[in-house]
Amino acid sequence: MAATGLHLVGTGAGSPLNMTVGGKEIASSCDYRFLEGYTSLLGENGENRLEKLVGAYEIIRRPEVENPERILELAKSNSVALLVVGDPMQATTHVDLLLRCKDEGIHTSVHHAVSAVDLVCAGLGLQSYRFGRQVSLTFPHGNHLPTSPLEFIAENRFLGLHTLVLLDLDPTGMGIEQPQPMTPPQAFEVMCRMVERLKDDPPPHLELENVSSARDLSRLKAVKWLLNEKIGDVHAVICSNLGSSNAQIKSGLLSKITENCVSGIHSIVITGELIGMEKDALEKLH
Amino acid sequence: MAATGLHLVGTGAGSPLNMTVGGKEIASSCDYRFLEGYTSLLGENGENRLEKLVGAYEIIRRPEVENPERILELAKSNSVALLVVGDPMQATTHVDLLLRCKDEGIHTSVHHAVSAVDLVCAGLGLQSYRFGRQVSLTFPHGNHLPTSPLEFIAENRFLGLHTLVLLDLDPTGMGIEQPQPMTPPQAFEVMCRMVERLKDDPPPHLELENVSSARDLSRLKAVKWLLNEKIGDVHAVICSNLGSSNAQIKSGLLSKITENCVSGIHSIVITGELIGMEKDALEKLH
Repeated sequence: MAATGLHLVGTGAGSPLNMTVGGKEIASSCDYRFLEGYTSLLGENGENRLEKLVGAYEIIRRPEVENPERILELAKSNSVALLVVGDPMQATTHVDLLLRCKDEGIHTSVHHAVSAVDLVCAGLGLQSYRFGRQVSLTFPHGNHLPTSPLEFIAENRFLGLHTLVLLDLDPTGMGIEQPQPMTPPQAFEVMCRMVERLKDDPPPHLELENVSSARDLSRLKAVKWLLNEKIGDVHAVICSNLGSSNAQIKSGLLSKITENCVSGIHSIVITGELIGMEKDALEKLH
Repeated sequence: MAATGLHLVGTGAGSPLNMTVGGKEIASSCDYRFLEGYTSLLGENGENRLEKLVGAYEIIRRPEVENPERILELAKSNSVALLVVGDPMQATTHVDLLLRCKDEGIHTSVHHAVSAVDLVCAGLGLQSYRFGRQVSLTFPHGNHLPTSPLEFIAENRFLGLHTLVLLDLDPTGMGIEQPQPMTPPQAFEVMCRMVERLKDDPPPHLELENVSSARDLSRLKAVKWLLNEKIGDVHAVICSNLGSSNAQIKSGLLSKITENCVSGIHSIVITGELIGMEKDALEKLH
């Protein structure tokens, strides 16, 4: 049986079937169960499936996780499971929650699950050690458009590495609405706008007179190199609804594959060099 | 029930409890079950636990997976589960196996699990988007000592990123013996030897007269920068037996933390810049 304290349990990406056997055991034996957030991200019929696996749960929103007084109070004398869609440690909020528990002497345990990152990196047949750092594209708010995601993509490609690009789920940035995940055409448009911004109005750290370290220079070179390509002609893979029954994988030129995607949740891999079996895997396995 | 064909099912790293609910369902309903390789990597009492979860299985070694005629023949008219410790798609062998099935018209499915990479990247409280490419350290064979792992670590650190360093499990390189995982002192020694090699006898692509592209130059700079540090003074984290009951996490200077580790399976994170909550998480959560 689950010990008194707070247990973070990942439900897995795409479907609660991607929860681990150990996570299911803990969650189903807790006195209280909360599910954080977006139930529509649990995949088709996910709410029922999850309830069948672990028992009934209460749905709470991000603000209640960020101000977790009620949950922590309960966890002082009960076993409490916080169910998180995907893997529970991909978000800083949950690291923060564990640190608070530590401060307050509350026992914790973490039960990982198969995340969107796993499904993409391990699932495409691309080699996991050929991925550089991952990036996230957020919905632009007015004129605010940081170009760092595209700069990191440039750095990875410059090194021949793939980049996993996670797309924002929440246009409000508040975590309280039902999600409206960014679509591939929206993501392509955001990247095109970043290209324009980098060309017309580059951030100070990419102006030659401000480049003070070898590291800055290296990034500048990578970005200049990417800007020589047409962003729409970059080879990429769109991964839609991975882990669920309506999964779709499309690879090809970014400007082409962003058209006519299924609806749902997407991420994009901007490929670096495809080596060994990677090309075959992309062409034949999906 | 599992369909006729080959089902790749990850058992998870550290413990079969890290297998997914979906993977367990498929594996337990297959006509035939094979476990690839190293049962000692299943964690404490792992063989019994796995059998309880999915039913009896036959253990096969890597050569039988690389020359899979028997398995493929069976999979043409039965449902066959190939159980793989960790995640099944981290190894090229399994991508190759899926491609062969495709050629021979055999149905396949893949069931991911929580891998060592997940446990480290998500489990330490370090942010997953702050990891650069991962590297593997293999046992040196005589004088053969490629320095590329240390070059990649240098490139990542140069960009402020963490590096997950996976350690070799098999000194024979043949996949047929019981594993003798590389220990942290052995890993430290291999890295020290790479430093010496890079200083005394650098590979051709790191000699200035051969540097022809901005990318080569960038790597050269990163390596020179790393060689200015003492490798033993680099900050790192040793992750031992993650996902199992005798897990241990130690962080500090590489030369210090490699001493007095528990026995078992290890990986090392060479940290880049620690930002936000990362430092707190490393200090307090483990």
